[in-house]
Amino acid sequence: MTGSGPRDHGEPLGIDLGGTKCLGVVLGADGSVLRESRRSTPAGADAILDTIVSIASDLAPYGGFGVGVAGLVTRAGVLNAAPNLTGVAGLAVADGLTARLGHRVVVENDATCATYAEWRVGAGVDTGDMLLAALGTGIGGGVVAGGRLQHGHQGFAGEFGHMVVDPGGPPCVCGRRGCWERYASGAGLARLAREAALGGRAARVVDLAGGDPESVRGEHVQSAAREGDPDAVAVIDEFGRWVAVGLVNLTNALDPEMIVLGGGMADGADLYLGPIRRWFGELLYSPQLRAHPRIEIARLGSRAGAIGAAMLGAQRLDPAT
Amino acid sequence: MTGSGPRDHGEPLGIDLGGTKCLGVVLGADGSVLRESRRSTPAGADAILDTIVSIASDLAPYGGFGVGVAGLVTRAGVLNAAPNLTGVAGLAVADGLTARLGHRVVVENDATCATYAEWRVGAGVDTGDMLLAALGTGIGGGVVAGGRLQHGHQGFAGEFGHMVVDPGGPPCVCGRRGCWERYASGAGLARLAREAALGGRAARVVDLAGGDPESVRGEHVQSAAREGDPDAVAVIDEFGRWVAVGLVNLTNALDPEMIVLGGGMADGADLYLGPIRRWFGELLYSPQLRAHPRIEIARLGSRAGAIGAAMLGAQRLDPAT
Repeated sequence: MTGSGPRDHGEPLGIDLGGTKCLGVVLGADGSVLRESRRSTPAGADAILDTIVSIASDLAPYGGFGVGVAGLVTRAGVLNAAPNLTGVAGLAVADGLTARLGHRVVVENDATCATYAEWRVGAGVDTGDMLLAALGTGIGGGVVAGGRLQHGHQGFAGEFGHMVVDPGGPPCVCGRRGCWERYASGAGLARLAREAALGGRAARVVDLAGGDPESVRGEHVQSAAREGDPDAVAVIDEFGRWVAVGLVNLTNALDPEMIVLGGGMADGADLYLGPIRRWFGELLYSPQLRAHPRIEIARLGSRAGAIGAAMLGAQRLDPAT
Repeated sequence: MTGSGPRDHGEPLGIDLGGTKCLGVVLGADGSVLRESRRSTPAGADAILDTIVSIASDLAPYGGFGVGVAGLVTRAGVLNAAPNLTGVAGLAVADGLTARLGHRVVVENDATCATYAEWRVGAGVDTGDMLLAALGTGIGGGVVAGGRLQHGHQGFAGEFGHMVVDPGGPPCVCGRRGCWERYASGAGLARLAREAALGGRAARVVDLAGGDPESVRGEHVQSAAREGDPDAVAVIDEFGRWVAVGLVNLTNALDPEMIVLGGGMADGADLYLGPIRRWFGELLYSPQLRAHPRIEIARLGSRAGAIGAAMLGAQRLDPAT
């Protein structure tokens, strides 16, 4: 078992454990993906750990090993919460994998891994202060400050999605109201579009959704906007404003050089990026007295989490870092 | 002139340049204040620089020299904006002082200086991830992350006051709406109290303000609350909720071990701290699945900025740090 573990081979393995699939990659020295393996994510703690071990076996031999998981992951690799995984609350992922594999495993939040990857080999190379906002169904993120990836005290830095931007706003799955991810995520775009539809301001979007305003999803807004439908363009502009509100708040706090937008919503960047940048310039504190951070789209796509996990796994092998 | 400058004497000098007064301190090795000097802040760039030089002369000899200024201070010590100072927009404070004094001067934002002081010798000693929120007339702040004081790319990290927490809220001096400092500062407390008074829900507070709701200030709310007036206690609770909204947003982003509350509003901490902590626990993401940061009052009072400026001035003398 230890024959395929760390210190024998230099190429690190990273696994991104998501709600539906589990992706493993082995990285070359330049950050390129040499081999990859993908499986469905099962339910239950043992089945999940076994799946990770199977992917590791598929991809052996490897050097350092890191795993990214969507949820609140402690610095000791315990999964305090993972809304998209079944039967894992409180699971000691790092210890469980170390016991099965016989070598050390680094476990981090998936967006923290993606942030590290985009910083070291993606859109944010050569920046010292960078934020990644992963706009997907919800919103995750990560922070590079002062030339270092930041984890926070417990490992929970970067949970941007539950920043309250409107205390009287719509209820959030987290139990509060007006969280940023109710506006600036994929689910948020769909909600903004449904509101426009119910107000009679999105006829073409409703057409594309089959005629039912309640069926409107983000892709219907994107399709209508690409056709030039002004109602859809207006919804995209409103979405861009809400994205900017959160990015401005984070910029006031952290003054990044660059903000990288990742997650599934990055696919519609050709539509969103203009409105986001424009609203950002209007909402930032003292916009005329400072350079604005570059707002760019992530470069590593859906593999960013697995790539970053591999890099963090490799880094921790070296006691000097 | 250089005889009283850095490298000759180990005890650093720090100056906090505020809108009304300019405070200088010389620090002992344990962070205690050995000597201090205070002057009124004049108008105009030359007069301000001359005042700083006079205080330095009062307090010579000294080692490293740092200055904290309220405003957007670049990493090169240029004052991009300073709403409370007259005639200084674009002033190169560090270069101007270096030219007058013949030795290097470190210039930083005042709340960044206060954050450093509270972290090294105040409330946040031995933490690795700490935030300071300075609740005064407005709100400033600072960030310690990963065991380092963070400056941000341009030097503007910690401008928490202009985080938007209610896009439909009251207009802010910055030109936007619903900034956190419209609610969670001294001016914010007064505004919340005036709203309560105009709604007939703060009779005792209005009495203490001389009978005119428009004259209500934060200290009237504090006095009435200390008498046990339930309307005033309700305003303080609402204030505590707004303070908590901002602290929760910052905690979701940065996961600090400790949050230090400084600025003038720290004086009423006996009234606020309970409501702030209670609302924080209700508003935090996944509060039951994590340790909450300690929320404590700053220990260094109104000298924090000058103390931190001295420490940062001393630190930069050493090329290794």
